[in-house]
Amino acid sequence: MANKDPLMITDKDEMRKWSRSMRAQGKTIGLVPTMGYLHEGHLSLIQESHKQTQLTVVSIYVNPGQFSPTEDLSTYPSDFLGDIQKLKYVPGGVDVVFNPKNLYDYGNNDSGVGLDQEGGKVVSCVERSGMGHETWVRVERLEKDLCGKSRPVFFRGVATIVTKLFNIVEPDVAVFGKKDYQQWRIIKRMVRDLDFGIKVIGTELVRDDDGLAKSSRNVRLSPEDRQKALSISKSLFKAKFAAENGQNDCQELRNAVIQAIHEAGGKIDYAEIVDQESLEKLREIKRPAVFCVAAWFGNVRLIDNIEISV
Amino acid sequence: MANKDPLMITDKDEMRKWSRSMRAQGKTIGLVPTMGYLHEGHLSLIQESHKQTQLTVVSIYVNPGQFSPTEDLSTYPSDFLGDIQKLKYVPGGVDVVFNPKNLYDYGNNDSGVGLDQEGGKVVSCVERSGMGHETWVRVERLEKDLCGKSRPVFFRGVATIVTKLFNIVEPDVAVFGKKDYQQWRIIKRMVRDLDFGIKVIGTELVRDDDGLAKSSRNVRLSPEDRQKALSISKSLFKAKFAAENGQNDCQELRNAVIQAIHEAGGKIDYAEIVDQESLEKLREIKRPAVFCVAAWFGNVRLIDNIEISV
Repeated sequence: MANKDPLMITDKDEMRKWSRSMRAQGKTIGLVPTMGYLHEGHLSLIQESHKQTQLTVVSIYVNPGQFSPTEDLSTYPSDFLGDIQKLKYVPGGVDVVFNPKNLYDYGNNDSGVGLDQEGGKVVSCVERSGMGHETWVRVERLEKDLCGKSRPVFFRGVATIVTKLFNIVEPDVAVFGKKDYQQWRIIKRMVRDLDFGIKVIGTELVRDDDGLAKSSRNVRLSPEDRQKALSISKSLFKAKFAAENGQNDCQELRNAVIQAIHEAGGKIDYAEIVDQESLEKLREIKRPAVFCVAAWFGNVRLIDNIEISV
Repeated sequence: MANKDPLMITDKDEMRKWSRSMRAQGKTIGLVPTMGYLHEGHLSLIQESHKQTQLTVVSIYVNPGQFSPTEDLSTYPSDFLGDIQKLKYVPGGVDVVFNPKNLYDYGNNDSGVGLDQEGGKVVSCVERSGMGHETWVRVERLEKDLCGKSRPVFFRGVATIVTKLFNIVEPDVAVFGKKDYQQWRIIKRMVRDLDFGIKVIGTELVRDDDGLAKSSRNVRLSPEDRQKALSISKSLFKAKFAAENGQNDCQELRNAVIQAIHEAGGKIDYAEIVDQESLEKLREIKRPAVFCVAAWFGNVRLIDNIEISV
C-alpha cells in the first residue's frame, strides 16, 4: 500500500522553515542523509528513524565535496524517480524528501566545489579564489586511516556536508548505517566535539541473501565480479567465527581475509582489525573490535565490515 | 539603575534547554560570545543584540583551543565578578550569562585541549590519542594571512568554539566586533559555508578617548607602552584620511604606518591593506578596503584596523 506522497523540498531555506514550524508544534524530526540510488540498507535507516521520531526527512544529495577528482562522482549511480517510488512504499512513509541542487552554490558564480569540468571529467574539491566555499570540518584523528588513507578528502567532505545538512534540517535524530563504519564513528565524534544537539543512531549493515553488503555501487559490478566479491563477506564471517572462538592474533586473521580476496581476483585497499570506538589498529583482539575491508573488483571499490565481540 | 540579575548557566545541556524553551515560546535569542574581562566594546555588542532580538545570552569562556602553547592563555586577564557587575548595569541587561567550565571535557579524563601542564606552563591544542577532542572547523583561505600567519592555530580554535557555542545556545543572531576584523569575516564565511541558520552582525570598533582600540589586553600595557601604542591608531587615522583624499598606493600607505609604529618603539607583526570581504592584499585602493595592523608593545600584542571607503 502506498503512503501519502512525501513533501518535495529543494530549497534550503524552505527546508529549515518546515523543520522549525514542525518543532514549534512539538514534533520531533529524524534525518536520514543519503546520496540516492536507495536500497534496503537505506530503507532500514528510515525504519530506525520512525522508531526514534515522529517525522522523517530523507535527503538525497550526491555530495561533490567528498569525491576527489580521480574518483567516481560522474559515474555515481542515480535513479531519482525510482528512489521516490521506493520511498512511497517504505513502511510508515517519509514526510520530506530534501533534494537540493547544489549546496556549495552561494549565488556568486563561484561554487568552489564540484562544478568544474576538466577534459570532460567533473572535478570536485576545487578551492578557488574569492568567494567560493572554503570551510571544512575535520575529525583529525579518525579521518586519517582506513578509507581516509586512499581517499584523503573523503571524510572532510562527509563531515562538512553532514554539518550543512544538520544546520539546514535541524533534526533531533540522525541515522547512519554501520556499513560505513568509519563514517559513522566520525559523525558520532563530530557531533560530540562540536556539541550538536542531535542524537546519532547507527544501524546494522544489510546484506543480500548471498552475503554481499548492500551498496549503491553494487549495480556497477559485472555478474562475474559480483560473484567474486562474495569473497569479502565470506572471509569476514570466517574471521569473526575464528576470533570469537579463540583466535585473537590480528595478523593471522587479516592474512586469511587478504588471501581469500586476493585469490578471488580482488585488489585489497585495506583489511584492518581496529578498536570499535577509537579505530586504532589492534594486534590482539582483547576488546570489542571491528574488521574493516575495502577492495576493488573490476573498477568498483567495495567496503564491508564485521563487528567482533570478545 | 541595576537590571534584574542574569540567569547564570554553566552546564551546556541546561543552556540548550533554556534556549529551546524560549524559542518554543516564540522568543528570539541573541548571542554575544566573549572571553570575559568586559569593556565598552563588549557592552556595545550587547546593545546591538538588544536591537536584534528579544533575549540576549552573553557567553564568558576563555577558549584554550585558540591559544598555541607559546601564547598568553595563562596570563589572559580575567575578572568574573567585575564582569557580572558590568552586565548588571548595561542598559537593557542580559538574560543569561553562559560560563561553562571546560567545553573540551567529554567526561573521559582526556580533554585533548588546554589541560596539560608542561614545566608549569599551560599547553593547549594538544591532540592526544584516544577519546580527546579532535574535530576542528577550518576556514581554509581566510584563516591563512594577517593574524593567521603568526597565530597558526588561532582561527581554527575560534571557528571551532563558535560552532560549539552556536550548537549549544542555538541563537537567532550572533554579534561580533569588527575590532577582530578577520575573525568577523571568518565567522561570516563559516556561517554561510556551513549553512548555520544564524544571522551574524558585526559592530564598529570602540576606542578610548585618546584613540586606542578597546581590548581586554590593554590592562597589561605599562603606562609608557600604552602611550606609545597610540601610534597605531594615530597612523591609521592618517592613512585613512590620505587614502580617502587620493593617495591610493598601498605600499606608501603601509610604509607610513610601519614607520610611525616603529619609531614609537613598537614591533610590527603585520600592517596590510586588504579587500574588506576576501581579505586579499591590495596594491591600490580601488574598492572598499580595510587597513589591518598587529604590533607588539612590550609583551602585549595589539590589533587595530580601519575601514577605508573609496
